[in-house]
Amino acid sequence: MRYIRELHEGETIRAIYLCKSKRTAETRNGKPYDNLLLQDKTGTLDGKIWDPNSNGISDYDEMDFVEIVGEVITYNNNLQLNIKQLRKAQEGEYILADYMPTSEKDADAMYTELLGFVNKIQNNWLRQAVEFYFVKDEEFIRRFKNHSAAKSVHHGFCGGLLEHTLSILKLCEYYLSAYDILNADLLYAAAMYHDIGKTKELSAFPENDYTDDGQLLGHIVIGVEMFDEAVRTIPDFPPKLASELKHCILAHHGELEYGSPKKPALAEALALNLADMTDAKMQTLKEIFKDKNTTEWLGYNRLFESNLRKTSLS
Amino acid sequence: MRYIRELHEGETIRAIYLCKSKRTAETRNGKPYDNLLLQDKTGTLDGKIWDPNSNGISDYDEMDFVEIVGEVITYNNNLQLNIKQLRKAQEGEYILADYMPTSEKDADAMYTELLGFVNKIQNNWLRQAVEFYFVKDEEFIRRFKNHSAAKSVHHGFCGGLLEHTLSILKLCEYYLSAYDILNADLLYAAAMYHDIGKTKELSAFPENDYTDDGQLLGHIVIGVEMFDEAVRTIPDFPPKLASELKHCILAHHGELEYGSPKKPALAEALALNLADMTDAKMQTLKEIFKDKNTTEWLGYNRLFESNLRKTSLS
Amino acid sequence: MRYIRELHEGETIRAIYLCKSKRTAETRNGKPYDNLLLQDKTGTLDGKIWDPNSNGISDYDEMDFVEIVGEVITYNNNLQLNIKQLRKAQEGEYILADYMPTSEKDADAMYTELLGFVNKIQNNWLRQAVEFYFVKDEEFIRRFKNHSAAKSVHHGFCGGLLEHTLSILKLCEYYLSAYDILNADLLYAAAMYHDIGKTKELSAFPENDYTDDGQLLGHIVIGVEMFDEAVRTIPDFPPKLASELKHCILAHHGELEYGSPKKPALAEALALNLADMTDAKMQTLKEIFKDKNTTEWLGYNRLFESNLRKTSLS
Amino acid sequence: MRYIRELHEGETIRAIYLCKSKRTAETRNGKPYDNLLLQDKTGTLDGKIWDPNSNGISDYDEMDFVEIVGEVITYNNNLQLNIKQLRKAQEGEYILADYMPTSEKDADAMYTELLGFVNKIQNNWLRQAVEFYFVKDEEFIRRFKNHSAAKSVHHGFCGGLLEHTLSILKLCEYYLSAYDILNADLLYAAAMYHDIGKTKELSAFPENDYTDDGQLLGHIVIGVEMFDEAVRTIPDFPPKLASELKHCILAHHGELEYGSPKKPALAEALALNLADMTDAKMQTLKEIFKDKNTTEWLGYNRLFESNLRKTSLS
Amino acid sequence: MRYIRELHEGETIRAIYLCKSKRTAETRNGKPYDNLLLQDKTGTLDGKIWDPNSNGISDYDEMDFVEIVGEVITYNNNLQLNIKQLRKAQEGEYILADYMPTSEKDADAMYTELLGFVNKIQNNWLRQAVEFYFVKDEEFIRRFKNHSAAKSVHHGFCGGLLEHTLSILKLCEYYLSAYDILNADLLYAAAMYHDIGKTKELSAFPENDYTDDGQLLGHIVIGVEMFDEAVRTIPDFPPKLASELKHCILAHHGELEYGSPKKPALAEALALNLADMTDAKMQTLKEIFKDKNTTEWLGYNRLFESNLRKTSLS
Amino acid sequence: MRYIRELHEGETIRAIYLCKSKRTAETRNGKPYDNLLLQDKTGTLDGKIWDPNSNGISDYDEMDFVEIVGEVITYNNNLQLNIKQLRKAQEGEYILADYMPTSEKDADAMYTELLGFVNKIQNNWLRQAVEFYFVKDEEFIRRFKNHSAAKSVHHGFCGGLLEHTLSILKLCEYYLSAYDILNADLLYAAAMYHDIGKTKELSAFPENDYTDDGQLLGHIVIGVEMFDEAVRTIPDFPPKLASELKHCILAHHGELEYGSPKKPALAEALALNLADMTDAKMQTLKEIFKDKNTTEWLGYNRLFESNLRKTSLS
Repeated sequence: MRYIRELHEGETIRAIYLCKSKRTAETRNGKPYDNLLLQDKTGTLDGKIWDPNSNGISDYDEMDFVEIVGEVITYNNNLQLNIKQLRKAQEGEYILADYMPTSEKDADAMYTELLGFVNKIQNNWLRQAVEFYFVKDEEFIRRFKNHSAAKSVHHGFCGGLLEHTLSILKLCEYYLSAYDILNADLLYAAAMYHDIGKTKELSAFPENDYTDDGQLLGHIVIGVEMFDEAVRTIPDFPPKLASELKHCILAHHGELEYGSPKKPALAEALALNLADMTDAKMQTLKEIFKDKNTTEWLGYNRLFESNLRKTSLS
Repeated sequence: MRYIRELHEGETIRAIYLCKSKRTAETRNGKPYDNLLLQDKTGTLDGKIWDPNSNGISDYDEMDFVEIVGEVITYNNNLQLNIKQLRKAQEGEYILADYMPTSEKDADAMYTELLGFVNKIQNNWLRQAVEFYFVKDEEFIRRFKNHSAAKSVHHGFCGGLLEHTLSILKLCEYYLSAYDILNADLLYAAAMYHDIGKTKELSAFPENDYTDDGQLLGHIVIGVEMFDEAVRTIPDFPPKLASELKHCILAHHGELEYGSPKKPALAEALALNLADMTDAKMQTLKEIFKDKNTTEWLGYNRLFESNLRKTSLS
Repeated sequence: MRYIRELHEGETIRAIYLCKSKRTAETRNGKPYDNLLLQDKTGTLDGKIWDPNSNGISDYDEMDFVEIVGEVITYNNNLQLNIKQLRKAQEGEYILADYMPTSEKDADAMYTELLGFVNKIQNNWLRQAVEFYFVKDEEFIRRFKNHSAAKSVHHGFCGGLLEHTLSILKLCEYYLSAYDILNADLLYAAAMYHDIGKTKELSAFPENDYTDDGQLLGHIVIGVEMFDEAVRTIPDFPPKLASELKHCILAHHGELEYGSPKKPALAEALALNLADMTDAKMQTLKEIFKDKNTTEWLGYNRLFESNLRKTSLS
Repeated sequence: MRYIRELHEGETIRAIYLCKSKRTAETRNGKPYDNLLLQDKTGTLDGKIWDPNSNGISDYDEMDFVEIVGEVITYNNNLQLNIKQLRKAQEGEYILADYMPTSEKDADAMYTELLGFVNKIQNNWLRQAVEFYFVKDEEFIRRFKNHSAAKSVHHGFCGGLLEHTLSILKLCEYYLSAYDILNADLLYAAAMYHDIGKTKELSAFPENDYTDDGQLLGHIVIGVEMFDEAVRTIPDFPPKLASELKHCILAHHGELEYGSPKKPALAEALALNLADMTDAKMQTLKEIFKDKNTTEWLGYNRLFESNLRKTSLS
Repeated sequence: MRYIRELHEGETIRAIYLCKSKRTAETRNGKPYDNLLLQDKTGTLDGKIWDPNSNGISDYDEMDFVEIVGEVITYNNNLQLNIKQLRKAQEGEYILADYMPTSEKDADAMYTELLGFVNKIQNNWLRQAVEFYFVKDEEFIRRFKNHSAAKSVHHGFCGGLLEHTLSILKLCEYYLSAYDILNADLLYAAAMYHDIGKTKELSAFPENDYTDDGQLLGHIVIGVEMFDEAVRTIPDFPPKLASELKHCILAHHGELEYGSPKKPALAEALALNLADMTDAKMQTLKEIFKDKNTTEWLGYNRLFESNLRKTSLS
Repeated sequence: MRYIRELHEGETIRAIYLCKSKRTAETRNGKPYDNLLLQDKTGTLDGKIWDPNSNGISDYDEMDFVEIVGEVITYNNNLQLNIKQLRKAQEGEYILADYMPTSEKDADAMYTELLGFVNKIQNNWLRQAVEFYFVKDEEFIRRFKNHSAAKSVHHGFCGGLLEHTLSILKLCEYYLSAYDILNADLLYAAAMYHDIGKTKELSAFPENDYTDDGQLLGHIVIGVEMFDEAVRTIPDFPPKLASELKHCILAHHGELEYGSPKKPALAEALALNLADMTDAKMQTLKEIFKDKNTTEWLGYNRLFESNLRKTSLS
């Protein structure tokens, strides 16, 4: 397959890409043309169909995989594709994994590492609640391993949810070594559960967009409900403990204005909130710095409310 | 029974009151004495036991009902009770309803009115979900009718939760007549459910204080869980509709910083939020104005961020 | 008359529209052309004059009524008008009411309903103050009935101010039935006066833009001055009562940061603020939902800080 | 007269003071006694009547002038007065000016200086509007010269309103010399009018408390009304100019959240706002530093959100 | 030299301008062209090179001085330059001062005035600290006189830093005459030092952009370090006095959220903050009003959060 | 020595304590008495001298070490000391370390651990800058090891600054293992320097209060100056690197409103900010939970804006 990142000016290609978006416009003299955004896992490419009504151009829609024939040109210092032929590709002609941004880390290896944390949970009730999804629910495991942790911002790629959750677990492991007021069982279980609502808040790749439940309830409340579903299958689960874990999920954004209906009231809820914020900020910066081989200023970033650059030592 | 509001200086009384709080202090010359806050449904009264170790004073604790013998005096323009004898009263010696602030409206009449709204719900799923608690659950109905809607602020009395809920339903009925974009079934069902989490967030009278779940989860999330419990008993309840009603509960505080994890996204959620805020503010003012037979300024109120008074026409 | 909402692709029309805006641009090869925004009460239409210097195109300006001849085409899924001829229309050639967005409700009927509220005011002073404008001032009545309540946002159409005021009066009528601390005379009079400053803050249709006084003083202070003008004509109007009504006008936005120089200090001022906010929010949502025959998500709305949709029951 | 600032421990005095407040308390063994706050223009003094029912103690109330006989003692490093006799003083027995904090500057001299600014106003309309109060209204002049500019905070003394207004005029005079975009006539007239509403927002000394209109309308809107009253007596006053001066009054607090319903939109409104804020802050600091003969830290000040001290050079 | 402000449509010119920015675009039919922003001290001009590859167009970059030959046309009511020839100009062909926005006031005269304030400083330590830069450091004096006080907003021109500093000194001189709690030596010295960090926060003209130290440290901390450098050369400089002057620099933005790590704790720090804010706001308005010969509304301004206009008296 | 925590009711003791505060009051019948707050490292104890003028009571002041003889009684459930004799103790009679709250960890062991991090710094410039204080400056080392990190809140005890700094270093070590965008040399050096300004912001124990420089400059700017002092001794220290480390110190509070004049612009500055916030919050909670052997709710905490409790698993 010809990956987008490897194309260069002047070549004529035949390849299958995901059509992420499609918009019809019109030239000054009134001729309609199509703007496409083509995507594979290495990036995106603007495409133009200057003659959408020609025979070579079949019907297609957003989110279709399309085989195109076209010429790579340069426009305003960016590559662009003048598309001569286009047809919808059939399942089997392409491998899904080629078309989605994906964690650089191996999903299976990460999941094995996550299971190591499951095994550290001594408390029988919490252990069962965690195993309900992470060990026994095959369908959940498959979705969790491939899900992103966000529509945009940080960890917005296949495996991002798993990578983020594992990163949090390790931060929590460090916190447990440093602050003896923390209970490992509650903290590990809460870390695993904290974002599982995202498996229902966002649809799976390649769409990766907010679902109806995502809009109406959000991943925090969905996560509480998913935990509750597990608890109902475990006879005599202590109600106080269940409420404590739910509280950790509810409070993990740390502030009401960030969507947590409760502020952290337990040490474990506070630690989870700190781990979540730390990983979110560091990973966001990592994604900003990625592929920037410079110590020059990168421009003002609205999230960090600052211009950003790498240290001169890097 | 001798109600606190009807006591006057100089009389010696024997009566049973709820001991809402108890604090031991010491006179300048080192003698210990007890400060009590006595309560019945008509108000509260400071009590002093100047000789706690005398024979007439038995052991007692906060939240006990105590029979006292004492003299009513005036101190700093307020009545006070110098307690000579005190003993714990037994169940049967007092009627609970005499000791709790209670809605001025009749609970049964209000509940009948509320059931009238249940009958207006045409949608079969929502109707069943509402009846699960409000028609079929005897224990819930009993608790709901006697619960307060707050620890302090507005509707903080027996029957307050029912009075507030009914008030909201009527406001919603008015909104439905004025704004044709609203769906009656969803709005009525959401209004009934919006604060039922308070039956678990606050303990029953006479304690009326935050429960463990109230602290950890809050009435908004508890309400969603209670609704979910009803839904699980109704086969084929449409998931989208369930999420919409949950959304109305979640969003009814209107702003993230007020504890709603989602802002209103449906017209019915917005209407419920407006009705809740309107009744909360008007009732709070009503309770401030109560028994103030004056159009003078009543002093700065932190909640309204203003000095307050009645109109000169009142 | 050919209403804009009823045009379709391919036809050639001759019609008179209001030219709401006009902007000259230039094609890539340096030819100037005109962009017009044409308006009638059913909507707006983009127009293009590709040859502004041709004989058929007379001089014209923004806010002129123009008779055009042109061809309706489709561009980017929207209708557009290629204008071949254009001339300014004379008064008499068109009916003003055809060109302005107008309340769906009948102005005379609404006004009659409003007068019903005037008649409910028992207090002689307030009754006279209300009649000063709403019964005796013909010029005011004409302007009030045709005014909008906003430049954009809610009720931004002919009759919008009347519709909004009437809606508030009815909400207040409901509040009076529910909260016995409210005085009907003060509340009704305040509701009628609360936005009359808008008759001077915004110019009349078709312009409907901020006046100099609107910018410098705003409708809240203008409203107080208009009420003061009425009071000065009524001998012995009680000063305290006058100040109370002024206060209701001043405080009706509810918060200093929304432009009210005082927070509500009277129950009636609070109720007016709640009614105003309720009607503003519900009407805004109504205008967003209008003509959207879908229960799909409508996109993020900045005012409500949320994505929005209709309930699945609608 | 024996001024409070000049009293010392051990002497027995007979003198007349203003009784600013009165509170009845009770000793531990149940004996009632009175706490008084006595005031003259040099300061305040705590007084105690240990035997309120003795023959020497007549009836009295807050805000009465009282002649007392008592002994000056020291308690917790502060002077205190043990009062043996007390009677209400009659008008004529005391001179009002002795009992109120008063500007250190001579009121007549300040007023003469202010009239100098009146004479600088060239614009005929604004000149007449200013003269309406500051030259022709004897009663207003008398009140303005003796009024305070605040209940507490800065300039809360007799003559404070005049002193503040004059200070602002001089700041404006400086601004006019520095920034040529400012119009002197509008700026001087606005400066004179900006706080005249305080003559009605606060009652006169010795009470110096918020009036009913002060609570309901505030000095900003009262000021606009007072200016409007002047304008109505001047035939053909240009409406645009009147609105500009009203705008300057309305906007002089600079921010909506500080009670201005409009932000400054004219250069003169901005300059007035800057002058007002500068004088308010500098004068507040001056009052804090007064009588503190030290360069030590004076403690955290909530208004300035900082600990404060004088420079080591002072 | 042909100044940009004096060009008119139709003429063909040969002149040297600064190329402030350069952007390559493409016409609809795929032909590349260059957009230039040309600048001299009288303003800026859009330039187009429709044939960048022609012989007459040499290589050039942003921030080059270029000699162009071209035709002045009108496009959308603005002048534009169609460039036929372009070559980089050599040093010596142009005078730098012709190409930068420059204070209207004479730099030498302003500097002489500033030295007058140096001479008013009596305190020996502060006098030496000020003379270290403003009298003895020739290189600093040259930079200070030509520096701007901002990248954009107010005083963003050659000499702007000097003009702003002098303006502040005069405001402080006025404050000293009005508020006797201020120490002249500390206030004058602090005023001179308050923005000298800008000589390192922003690069010199024509670039006038943030430096690396400007981004990392900001002019407030840089200013403290520059003062510290002076202090280290003065034996026995009193540490307390040094800290006070540093504090004035640190606190001159007045609020933590404006970048001051400390709120003003000394009267002089407060006065400096007020002077800085006053001059910043008045000068910003002055630059907005400049060349606007109208009393019409100028449109909404985000900084002042208001629509703005000149008074009708101007 | 008799530690305060080990005292019990009824015993008569002779011991030396630090007199942390002293306040003179008066009994109801006018007899003066002294309130003392006595302190040793195990806690504090209220003391009363009912007869301050007796022969046994010598002169003494706050912050004196005093030998007292007195009787331990119980008052309001707390121990209290009735002091019969008191004299100032001389240096040599007591060991300072017995009287100050002190880290539970061994200062020498912690410092050795900190030196391990010094050795990890490879960059020669940063290594020298760190060694300037942490290896070569004996006086600094002594102060740093005994300093607190706060007047109140977290780490407000002897050794607290060292404990906090070491805790941050370890968090940074973990971050370095998890996020490969971080540079170890810059991050470790910044962590060591981030709070060293506190050695001058707060006076040493037992006073532990803000110094004049602490008030005027704050530990952030003091820290930058201390680093600058080190840099000036190191020939050819790269200016860019120096600015980066200063930036990390300046930005370590993360937000302007928390006193950082710059937001983090480097990954290392962000990481330092996250480590500082994490340790501050976790340590604060740890100090709240200390000695609370309960899983009951501990009451509302203003810092965390929540009621707090330990998990039921603890």
